[in-house]
Amino acid sequence: MKIAVLGTGMVGQSLTAALLARGHFVVIGTRDVATTLAAVEPDTFGAPGFALWYRRYSHVPVVRFADAIAQCDVLINATRATSILDILARVPRATFEDKVLIDVSNDLDFSRGLPPILRITDVAGSSVGERIQTAFPLARVVKTLNTMNAFVMVRPELVSGGDSTVFVSGNDVEAKKLVQVLLREFGWDDIIDLGDIATARTAELLFPLWFKTWGAIGQKPFNFKVAR
Amino acid sequence: MKIAVLGTGMVGQSLTAALLARGHFVVIGTRDVATTLAAVEPDTFGAPGFALWYRRYSHVPVVRFADAIAQCDVLINATRATSILDILARVPRATFEDKVLIDVSNDLDFSRGLPPILRITDVAGSSVGERIQTAFPLARVVKTLNTMNAFVMVRPELVSGGDSTVFVSGNDVEAKKLVQVLLREFGWDDIIDLGDIATARTAELLFPLWFKTWGAIGQKPFNFKVAR
Repeated sequence: MKIAVLGTGMVGQSLTAALLARGHFVVIGTRDVATTLAAVEPDTFGAPGFALWYRRYSHVPVVRFADAIAQCDVLINATRATSILDILARVPRATFEDKVLIDVSNDLDFSRGLPPILRITDVAGSSVGERIQTAFPLARVVKTLNTMNAFVMVRPELVSGGDSTVFVSGNDVEAKKLVQVLLREFGWDDIIDLGDIATARTAELLFPLWFKTWGAIGQKPFNFKVAR
Repeated sequence: MKIAVLGTGMVGQSLTAALLARGHFVVIGTRDVATTLAAVEPDTFGAPGFALWYRRYSHVPVVRFADAIAQCDVLINATRATSILDILARVPRATFEDKVLIDVSNDLDFSRGLPPILRITDVAGSSVGERIQTAFPLARVVKTLNTMNAFVMVRPELVSGGDSTVFVSGNDVEAKKLVQVLLREFGWDDIIDLGDIATARTAELLFPLWFKTWGAIGQKPFNFKVAR
């Protein structure tokens, strides 16, 4: 598949490497190409500066967000949740027709430092996934992979021999099938389809428990499994 | 232990039966004893009317909330989250000194019918567990068992041979130890201490995902496991 990974942080790096390893054509989208290619400082989470990571992946095109979106069928939102609506708004609406937009983000507020805090408005408040779908109705938004860290996302075998769960939410059945193909390529076996994009909210609300659990078990890799 | 189970619905019934089976002295607390003993209609969730359930457990005292609280060292909140603060407010504050109050509730809104909706105010909004602790500082509140159904609560072996997780939150280390003793009696092995009572919020935010997952897997018993 031709996949645009939007975002150059830990999540974008991890997804890009995994997709390349499975033979996909990946384009990395960023706000400012020159700034990204020059970034050597670690990011908020301690991920290596993009420039260091890119030494190994310099065959991957790094282009502006709009250019990445234009040339790919599948888009992955690996930017901060606060940025994505602005990024997409700069692209002509018709560009999104039939594209699958995979949203792996959580709506985290870093303004008070670490740890980030999940933005919650009220119970009826929509999730990031839902807001993207509402603003860009031509895109087929699928929420997934937002309930584990960037490494477990693409290597489920890091946790409990791969025996844990990933969730998907989205309105478009075909788009969810395509996403499940990618998830199985990464090694995911237990994929639970929660329903339409409104259900993305339920998976996004997992972040606070994820964060406290991560601290409680000694900051080791883990993931939630639906045991039944 | 002398344990007051506050609430006579499915959760109260399930916890009472399990505690009795493990040799504890249990008193059931209710708002109006006569009404409770006469209840034959199933409740909102389809649990049998209390009167029917009570035929098998008629040796258990059913008394008013305040009387149950007064005579026990451990209190379990199995009422609706909306009721508990009012119930406790009718009891003299000094009564709570050193008592362990186990809160297994979620703040669910049934006013729009089923399914219930989790009340969420904002990210800084406190959880039920936290609100109880703040209002009754003499009590030692421990949040637990709110992340699975009433049957799995006391029979973790119903799910995946018992291989799933229960969370505890609370400010008082000794109270959490006592709760862990009870949890182990029920069969819980993987008990994760999330931290102080403020962390109860994170476990309470799991309800929406719990509910959608339950639907997605065919309404079978399940529980979340922290796979690592």
